[in-house]
Amino acid sequence: MKHASTDIDIVKSTTSKLDSVDFENLKFGHVFTDHMMECDYEDGAWKTPVIKPYGKIELEPSAKVFHYGQAVFEGMKAFRDDNDKIWLFRPDENFKRINLSSKRLAIPEFPEEYFFQGLEELLKIDKEWIKKGFGNSLYIRPFVIATEPGVLASPGASYKFMIICSPAKSYYTGEVRVQISEKYSRAADGGVGAAKAAGNYGAQFYPTNLAKEAGFQQIIWTDANSHEFLEEAGTMNVFFRVNDTLLTAPVNDRILDGVTRKSILSLAEANSIKAEVRRVSVKEIIEAAKNGSLKEIFGAGTAAVINPIQGFGYKGERYELPKITDSYASFFKDKLMKIQYNLAEDEFGWRYEVKE
Amino acid sequence: MKHASTDIDIVKSTTSKLDSVDFENLKFGHVFTDHMMECDYEDGAWKTPVIKPYGKIELEPSAKVFHYGQAVFEGMKAFRDDNDKIWLFRPDENFKRINLSSKRLAIPEFPEEYFFQGLEELLKIDKEWIKKGFGNSLYIRPFVIATEPGVLASPGASYKFMIICSPAKSYYTGEVRVQISEKYSRAADGGVGAAKAAGNYGAQFYPTNLAKEAGFQQIIWTDANSHEFLEEAGTMNVFFRVNDTLLTAPVNDRILDGVTRKSILSLAEANSIKAEVRRVSVKEIIEAAKNGSLKEIFGAGTAAVINPIQGFGYKGERYELPKITDSYASFFKDKLMKIQYNLAEDEFGWRYEVKE
Ligand SMILES: Cc1ncc(COP(=O)(O)O)c(C=O)c1O
Ligand SMILES: Cc1ncc(COP(=O)(O)O)c(C=O)c1O
Repeated sequence: MKHASTDIDIVKSTTSKLDSVDFENLKFGHVFTDHMMECDYEDGAWKTPVIKPYGKIELEPSAKVFHYGQAVFEGMKAFRDDNDKIWLFRPDENFKRINLSSKRLAIPEFPEEYFFQGLEELLKIDKEWIKKGFGNSLYIRPFVIATEPGVLASPGASYKFMIICSPAKSYYTGEVRVQISEKYSRAADGGVGAAKAAGNYGAQFYPTNLAKEAGFQQIIWTDANSHEFLEEAGTMNVFFRVNDTLLTAPVNDRILDGVTRKSILSLAEANSIKAEVRRVSVKEIIEAAKNGSLKEIFGAGTAAVINPIQGFGYKGERYELPKITDSYASFFKDKLMKIQYNLAEDEFGWRYEVKE
Repeated sequence: MKHASTDIDIVKSTTSKLDSVDFENLKFGHVFTDHMMECDYEDGAWKTPVIKPYGKIELEPSAKVFHYGQAVFEGMKAFRDDNDKIWLFRPDENFKRINLSSKRLAIPEFPEEYFFQGLEELLKIDKEWIKKGFGNSLYIRPFVIATEPGVLASPGASYKFMIICSPAKSYYTGEVRVQISEKYSRAADGGVGAAKAAGNYGAQFYPTNLAKEAGFQQIIWTDANSHEFLEEAGTMNVFFRVNDTLLTAPVNDRILDGVTRKSILSLAEANSIKAEVRRVSVKEIIEAAKNGSLKEIFGAGTAAVINPIQGFGYKGERYELPKITDSYASFFKDKLMKIQYNLAEDEFGWRYEVKE
């Protein structure tokens, strides 16, 4: 990737919140760095991006984002290695995906040079927020919202692209048991499930609350038509290990094309782990759980990297997974993180250095 | 309905935009009245509603509404009759529906007395914005957004309920031809289609743009599973008249339970018009179009009341509807509007007076 130079306006904060943050006890996505990137779309063009002190934004109450959920986002991370170099992981994938999401939501695409230069300048200014140490990272949230005032249900003519950043340790904690959805669904054929559209997530909260009340931490989403096939785990892609074979659903217009998922598939191939990308039925997983061939289930996504799942519930029955030592989950998590933290060779060229 | 008294804080605007508005040339949902209603949810409770000058709101860039589309809305209208009385149309239905929508989006329900007293006080303060004359109305937009900062995908703990109002003449203009969707869909089984969730609407923009490029004004949404059944027209419920029978889909978790739709069904019954509430297939409508028994298609919703559809497209074929004089569309529109404007007897008790 080469990114042409751009003029970005920079307004530095005169104070820093750094000293007030307890980096050992971070709640995910709660504390934000000193700066943010903001870029407005008006009169048919994206204006000059601005990096400025993190702070509130002002919008008309009739702004389309409030009424029509015309909004998309991304999630990525920056890492600091032992030599104080800063790295991103496959940022080109996030850049491409936010524009795919935008297209599906009728939002104008964002220029590549603005994305990379804005992001890199922001990371350099807020560099001290990226802490050394395996597991520490800076979670990066690019997003776009429709700011046009007016309550007519049609695409707006003005938008705001922003990047905000939050220091992170890890996303999920504790044991995770999931409920396989029999009724609720995440996305429709011909819908926006493959986009990181804001509305997909709010729609999951209520069914997830019900799953929590039933004693689970998350939901495994099944296809909306038949509820027979396993699609995603919460806001992650999902993998099953049956004997020594890895199974995961193919991406389609209901399933997000996750960067972690596709990286795992590449790592599986490179490490001679058999992986099948095909529809995975609830039936076969239940059978595998019953006959002992189901070894693992795990979610995969930027925030958690890999999230092992200890058990699941379906139609009132509960299934526990065996405790195993040589898990694929830890194997892939370790492989991925070592690449991310510049502790292993980067055979796929996934690392991207944020140079001074 | 009886609504207990509530204390509402009122901050009056010192100026009015009234004189600057051209009421003869209103673009739908573009101009807003002088005041708005705002009510915050914090620490587990809705605080005292405030009516204050219409103006921008300030939010954290990490507010959940921007990232997770945790937002719902309503659409209703106020009318002024010839004796300067102000009327709402079945507002209890909108109140119930916004709370159903909220529940599905894991948003706390809004108290009935706050809803009615806030709304009525607001209408009284902005009374001059409700103009006399058949067809003139004040479009009312209650909505709720998640304001909690934080980029963890979980329900927020703080919300803002608002009501904003916009003077209106009519929503749709000109001839409307619709494309029957073969690929895109509005909602999934087990999804949020039955809620007025913000994300449902932004998701429609791109497919609607494609339909526009193909020469249509709107889309008729089909079921996501088979695309064989007709569900909604744009953001309206949809009716078909085959010979003298009215057909419309039953509401389910993909289809909004529209107030206009259910009022039409009541009016049909009272006026001995045969109506069938059942799944309507694309196939039967195409056949009816071909053999001449398809007399009308129309959309039904608060904004447009009734929106006649002149033709439709499906799999590259175009179908035109006959021009008829004794249309059900005009019959129902006239009946409904006369009730709304206090020009006809209100046999169902649908009118609700906003008393001084
Ligand atoms: C619905 C959904 N599935 C899967 C993922 C995983 O994608 P990625 O690995 O690119 O983070 C995400 C985002 O994190 C998501 O929102
Ligand atoms: C998707 C959808 N269908 C139908 C309707 C019609 O509902 P109502 O008649 O209550 O306005 C609306 C809202 O106007 C809607 O958003």
